[in-house]
Amino acid sequence: MAHTNHRILLAARPAGIPGPEHFQADAEPARPPGPGEVLVATRYISIDPAMRSWIGAAPGYVRQVGIGEPMRAGGIAQVLESRASGLQPGDWVQGRTGWQSHPTLRGDQTQALDLSVGSIEDWAGPLGTSALTAYFGLRDVGSLRPGDTLLVSGAAGGVGQIAAQIGQIEACRVVGIAGGTDKCRYLSDTLKLDAVIDYKAEPDIAAAIRRACPEGVDVYFDNVGGPTLDAALLALRMGARIVSCGRISQAGTAEPYGIRNLSAFSGKRARMQSFLVFDYHDRYQEARAWLAYHLRAGRLRQRLHVVKGLDRAPDALAMLFTGGNTGKLVVDAWA
Amino acid sequence: MAHTNHRILLAARPAGIPGPEHFQADAEPARPPGPGEVLVATRYISIDPAMRSWIGAAPGYVRQVGIGEPMRAGGIAQVLESRASGLQPGDWVQGRTGWQSHPTLRGDQTQALDLSVGSIEDWAGPLGTSALTAYFGLRDVGSLRPGDTLLVSGAAGGVGQIAAQIGQIEACRVVGIAGGTDKCRYLSDTLKLDAVIDYKAEPDIAAAIRRACPEGVDVYFDNVGGPTLDAALLALRMGARIVSCGRISQAGTAEPYGIRNLSAFSGKRARMQSFLVFDYHDRYQEARAWLAYHLRAGRLRQRLHVVKGLDRAPDALAMLFTGGNTGKLVVDAWA
Repeated sequence: MAHTNHRILLAARPAGIPGPEHFQADAEPARPPGPGEVLVATRYISIDPAMRSWIGAAPGYVRQVGIGEPMRAGGIAQVLESRASGLQPGDWVQGRTGWQSHPTLRGDQTQALDLSVGSIEDWAGPLGTSALTAYFGLRDVGSLRPGDTLLVSGAAGGVGQIAAQIGQIEACRVVGIAGGTDKCRYLSDTLKLDAVIDYKAEPDIAAAIRRACPEGVDVYFDNVGGPTLDAALLALRMGARIVSCGRISQAGTAEPYGIRNLSAFSGKRARMQSFLVFDYHDRYQEARAWLAYHLRAGRLRQRLHVVKGLDRAPDALAMLFTGGNTGKLVVDAWA
Repeated sequence: MAHTNHRILLAARPAGIPGPEHFQADAEPARPPGPGEVLVATRYISIDPAMRSWIGAAPGYVRQVGIGEPMRAGGIAQVLESRASGLQPGDWVQGRTGWQSHPTLRGDQTQALDLSVGSIEDWAGPLGTSALTAYFGLRDVGSLRPGDTLLVSGAAGGVGQIAAQIGQIEACRVVGIAGGTDKCRYLSDTLKLDAVIDYKAEPDIAAAIRRACPEGVDVYFDNVGGPTLDAALLALRMGARIVSCGRISQAGTAEPYGIRNLSAFSGKRARMQSFLVFDYHDRYQEARAWLAYHLRAGRLRQRLHVVKGLDRAPDALAMLFTGGNTGKLVVDAWA
């Protein structure tokens, strides 16, 4: 059976928030797999903040996507044809599908999913890369300890909601920051965080953090940067750690926000650290075992925000940067 | 013999740079030592950036100096009368003399100086607290490694010049930033740093750092904060460490400078860390042994900038914040 590979290509580099105007769709006959390759049908495509750095004008830490190339993305897909050892038609894999419906991938660059550990939705969510980012960010980079006060921004997002729940499992007091009633209700009613701050409803974020964290913040898991980081700096306890995971508030701004409160960082034995989840590749198995254990025990929820249809991937990306998603954002290419 | 204790008291809390208008002099009869105490004659008084945080309106990490109290300071002094075991008249000690000519101190809060290790000027300089700050800041906080490119701001100052030379001893490429021809000549001609940037003569600090560090910066020892930190962020290599030691550029500013380049920090596995030298108290002996060894070997110079007369201590403090000193700034209360 001949398949058509529908693709979304990068057409222009965004200066601010990326959206449909920066992409264009095309289609080509799917390429039969060569030796060691698999032809797959992409189901869930992960939409992540890091994508902005792959397509902007300024080079980031990974190679940029070229104009006219399919947008790069991680995805979950089912094998249609295989010339790779160990992979059979019908198997589920994760790999770098990109924004493509029927890509041909190298078998050794895909990973078969063990569906006895979790469903494909779990592999897109609490067992996926966002969850690994939260795990290594908090436990290794942030040196989270029981009893800590953990502040998480972007707490209703893909990484943030896992970070918040890891904090709960580790016996921390967890305070979440998110924007809007729906997200905040999810954090307080469903995840049952100790306190929730709606930054869109709060005239003074710094005061709200002080109220929610009267003894100060031990670990700030920062997904947003900008004014929220600036406010969090004022609440740091001695020995505080800032896990510098993302700066999504700054993606659409022409002029970056100036951080003014580093004076509150000095003299506090404080640490701010950025990291790449890929550096922890050798320990993904450990992390997934931990995440799967707590998932099965019902201690780890993940709301997937599913956008239907590959052609809507550019809209989904724009939504990520305008705060439209609650939970881990994915495109369902089969819907 | 009756001594008079000349004192400089805090009279008002500075909003910007502290100076003579915030202090007033007085005199009282020196108090004879009680049991366990020593009466000393203060010689060298250390003038340090941290003093600003002890006298400003915002509480810092140590108790503030009260209005009407003698200004707090570390100093080197000679014992005049002793009722403390192990201390004899004529011994040299370091302790918290404050801005006082003849304070009475607790013997167990002073430390006898071993003049076989270094002169009293050495104890005020390359064996003093500024040098310990550079040592632990670079070796522990900054994880300095041979071959690293080390960038030091405030490189002609008390901490900075020791940090730069520790970098040389550790086989690093060392680039110093300072303001003015005299300081920069000292760094290039006397200390022989690999490159020197005069921030007062450079229209574009970021470009100057790029030229001086073409492969980027592994460790940035930050004594100044503000625009120089912002520029250094743009030059960080993967895995870079920022030792957040001081923010002296921000002491006299009404509105703190906004740091805009944290985007260059993300995704670089970069770390920024503040610290307190007092936390390393148990290891001062290790540090002093290292510093004394390299001092004797001629690998560690320290230019002392001596201001003469206790009454000029407020001027010396103002000089520190306007960049008037080259080298470790002390007041000689005997001059």
